[in-house]
Amino acid sequence: MATPDIQLDAHGRLRHFLAIEGLPRALLIQILDQAERFAPVGDRAVKKVPLLRGKTVANLFFEPSTRTRTTFDLAAKRLSADVLNLNIEASSTKKGESLADTLRNLEAMQCDMFVVRHQVSGAADYIARQVAPHISVINGGDGRHEHPTQAMLDAFTIRRLKKSFDALRIAIVGDVAHSRVARSNIQALRTLGVPDLRVVGPKTLIPPGIEAMGVTVHDDLDEGISGADVVIMLRLQQERMQSALLPSAHEYFREYGLTAERLRGAAKDAIVMHPGPINRGVEIDSEVADGTQSVILQQVTYGIAVRMAVMSMAMGTQAQTGAA
Amino acid sequence: MATPDIQLDAHGRLRHFLAIEGLPRALLIQILDQAERFAPVGDRAVKKVPLLRGKTVANLFFEPSTRTRTTFDLAAKRLSADVLNLNIEASSTKKGESLADTLRNLEAMQCDMFVVRHQVSGAADYIARQVAPHISVINGGDGRHEHPTQAMLDAFTIRRLKKSFDALRIAIVGDVAHSRVARSNIQALRTLGVPDLRVVGPKTLIPPGIEAMGVTVHDDLDEGISGADVVIMLRLQQERMQSALLPSAHEYFREYGLTAERLRGAAKDAIVMHPGPINRGVEIDSEVADGTQSVILQQVTYGIAVRMAVMSMAMGTQAQTGAA
Amino acid sequence: MATPDIQLDAHGRLRHFLAIEGLPRALLIQILDQAERFAPVGDRAVKKVPLLRGKTVANLFFEPSTRTRTTFDLAAKRLSADVLNLNIEASSTKKGESLADTLRNLEAMQCDMFVVRHQVSGAADYIARQVAPHISVINGGDGRHEHPTQAMLDAFTIRRLKKSFDALRIAIVGDVAHSRVARSNIQALRTLGVPDLRVVGPKTLIPPGIEAMGVTVHDDLDEGISGADVVIMLRLQQERMQSALLPSAHEYFREYGLTAERLRGAAKDAIVMHPGPINRGVEIDSEVADGTQSVILQQVTYGIAVRMAVMSMAMGTQAQTGAA
Repeated sequence: MATPDIQLDAHGRLRHFLAIEGLPRALLIQILDQAERFAPVGDRAVKKVPLLRGKTVANLFFEPSTRTRTTFDLAAKRLSADVLNLNIEASSTKKGESLADTLRNLEAMQCDMFVVRHQVSGAADYIARQVAPHISVINGGDGRHEHPTQAMLDAFTIRRLKKSFDALRIAIVGDVAHSRVARSNIQALRTLGVPDLRVVGPKTLIPPGIEAMGVTVHDDLDEGISGADVVIMLRLQQERMQSALLPSAHEYFREYGLTAERLRGAAKDAIVMHPGPINRGVEIDSEVADGTQSVILQQVTYGIAVRMAVMSMAMGTQAQTGAA
Repeated sequence: MATPDIQLDAHGRLRHFLAIEGLPRALLIQILDQAERFAPVGDRAVKKVPLLRGKTVANLFFEPSTRTRTTFDLAAKRLSADVLNLNIEASSTKKGESLADTLRNLEAMQCDMFVVRHQVSGAADYIARQVAPHISVINGGDGRHEHPTQAMLDAFTIRRLKKSFDALRIAIVGDVAHSRVARSNIQALRTLGVPDLRVVGPKTLIPPGIEAMGVTVHDDLDEGISGADVVIMLRLQQERMQSALLPSAHEYFREYGLTAERLRGAAKDAIVMHPGPINRGVEIDSEVADGTQSVILQQVTYGIAVRMAVMSMAMGTQAQTGAA
Repeated sequence: MATPDIQLDAHGRLRHFLAIEGLPRALLIQILDQAERFAPVGDRAVKKVPLLRGKTVANLFFEPSTRTRTTFDLAAKRLSADVLNLNIEASSTKKGESLADTLRNLEAMQCDMFVVRHQVSGAADYIARQVAPHISVINGGDGRHEHPTQAMLDAFTIRRLKKSFDALRIAIVGDVAHSRVARSNIQALRTLGVPDLRVVGPKTLIPPGIEAMGVTVHDDLDEGISGADVVIMLRLQQERMQSALLPSAHEYFREYGLTAERLRGAAKDAIVMHPGPINRGVEIDSEVADGTQSVILQQVTYGIAVRMAVMSMAMGTQAQTGAA
């Protein structure tokens, strides 16, 4: 790398969490192991550990997202942090203040962490490059670039249910071209050693040259998920359904929607994943989404443990998962 | 009852709090007694008990209500819970997610309690029937059906000020037909043994056959409140004032508005209640609302203790009101 | 004074914090000294003290302000209070409830403190005159009247960096006529003993007769900041830029915008202050705003310590800044 990765400090420890790309395998494993320690916290009577007590976490959402914001909010609160939820779009622009000035002000208020969701690719990275040294930035999704905590919770779910990444066949199905989830997942699963990683979708929704990322490309769903141990369905964005790239939601479902019948082509014990929110009857049939092979809700649960892991690691605190 | 009441567990303890209808007298008394223990918390220097520490309460408001949301928020915080305030109307529909999926996601985030306010009658019940076993649902008002915490805070206020329900004459005045407060109050006060319970209002706003609930019906205000120990005024909704059911706000006030003069017809030590927000000069005159017989603000104060009682009981925790 | 100052109790201690006008010098010094004790809290690993644990602070913002609301929110959380953030404009008017009724309800919910931001001058004072005895009111800015916590954080910044007020030359530059910041600063800095206090701006934006407040008036920027130790730039409100009082933002900058070149006319070690949000290229050049003499971000940081000081003093608690 020409420039050193700003995500790590001089000792190789996590400082910001912006993208899976460029992170070493050992660090991804460390995040998964740390999340493993946090997972039982959600089952306790007192779902709280004191790790980030007296720290201030600012959720900076430039793009609305109830689900992601809520899980980061809960993760921070279960770490005992104080949380500021800022809808930046609504607030800062009103008085004509620049993004840089908004950030500097939040720094001056001695916030310790920014969780950033932004519609522009590279926004979290841009912010991380200009924040004060005491602040960690976590990418909660930036444009079509990355959604690294989603990839880590997906990896966590897979490891929990499949034990190892070593011999897995994993298919990522849908609008790969516009999906930050797909991009982060490919990076994470390749780094973690998944030998057979496939992307499946109509040619118009698969970025040309994606094979360079170490995946095989399929435009036939049955072929793409054949024998797969894990099927990750992507959300088809509403705006895509109305675009010229696709004929119609109905036809998309006929070609790429995951039904119980088609799922039979995957491995017998295949699990089905989806980052949510799901479009029932568009990319996935309700019978599958609610079926025994679906682990979609487990992903949500594990998402909190994974976010607690990333937040506590980036904050440089040592793991103590004892009750507060 | 054909179906067992989902509000109670196998041992008859409160699991959800959805409606007063069907709850035994002993349980209502238990809620009042528990609220009695929480009432002093609000007067302490440290208004906080650790009962729900590490629990997550989600306020799901499908219908806006600053007052009710705020009192539930405060009750949860004074029990040391973490609170998520979700404006569901705004958030979930945007991405086209179904209510069921929203609820399952909140469950997967290991929320412990849903406080639900919804414009559709039966919504809280519907939600309680499909949530995971670890979740309690509290009805914060559903359509024209019930508003059970309001009824319990009204009962609490009455018991505090009148000592016993045994010999009381209570009049509920106004738009009974469209009022969930009236419905819950009638159920609660009948169950608690009030011998003389009256509903008072124009015929167009009294549901036919309401006598079956154990009340007498009056369309003359003076007659209805004659000798009453407690006068509960209902809020006249704005939309009703513009409807064909009523001539005008002005005329309504002339016929059914409570003035100091008319209040003289009630018992000498009668108390005046209102669930708020009040319409001054429509259903109640300012002289009465702010007068010495009004206990409207005490209702608000007691509302927090009552909500703390219901939340802590539904969460299955034993009462400990010692300071945190 | 004809009427005793409602800001102080019978023992001269802070009860409400509504305006600098009328407060004795000793009290201002006490606030600064108390803030001095809170300033290190923001640098600690655990940025929290238990002073207001179990207290409820309601932020009543009738006028939107992310920055001021956020700093009060953080100050309250770092004092361990529970915080209610209420956008009153949106909520109360909807159901037609009067301001007085909204306040009485919040009182009945046993809130301990109201932080009020309102577009009408005198609003905080009006509210303080009618709240229950157990409630303290803090003015977060009322119309064109006062913004007393801003003045105290400005004074705190000046004392930290200039040690004493005794021999200072301070210039306040810009739209003095419409600025509550200017008004509060003049009161505070005069009371604290600043001997040379100047207001600088176009005649249309300087209130006639302001000399009575103990300031000198200048309509030439160079003359006004000549030799100044502190230059406080005021924000030019958007609405002012479009009014007949001013030619254009561009021309305003040419006459009154602070550039590095013009700043050379001030004292060599002059500091530049601004309450934010700044209009780059309107009242201040970016080179100055981001330059070595700018202390704009330190003001933000100190603002939290000052607000913690005022809140804890008004709540009648003795200073204990030990970690929770």
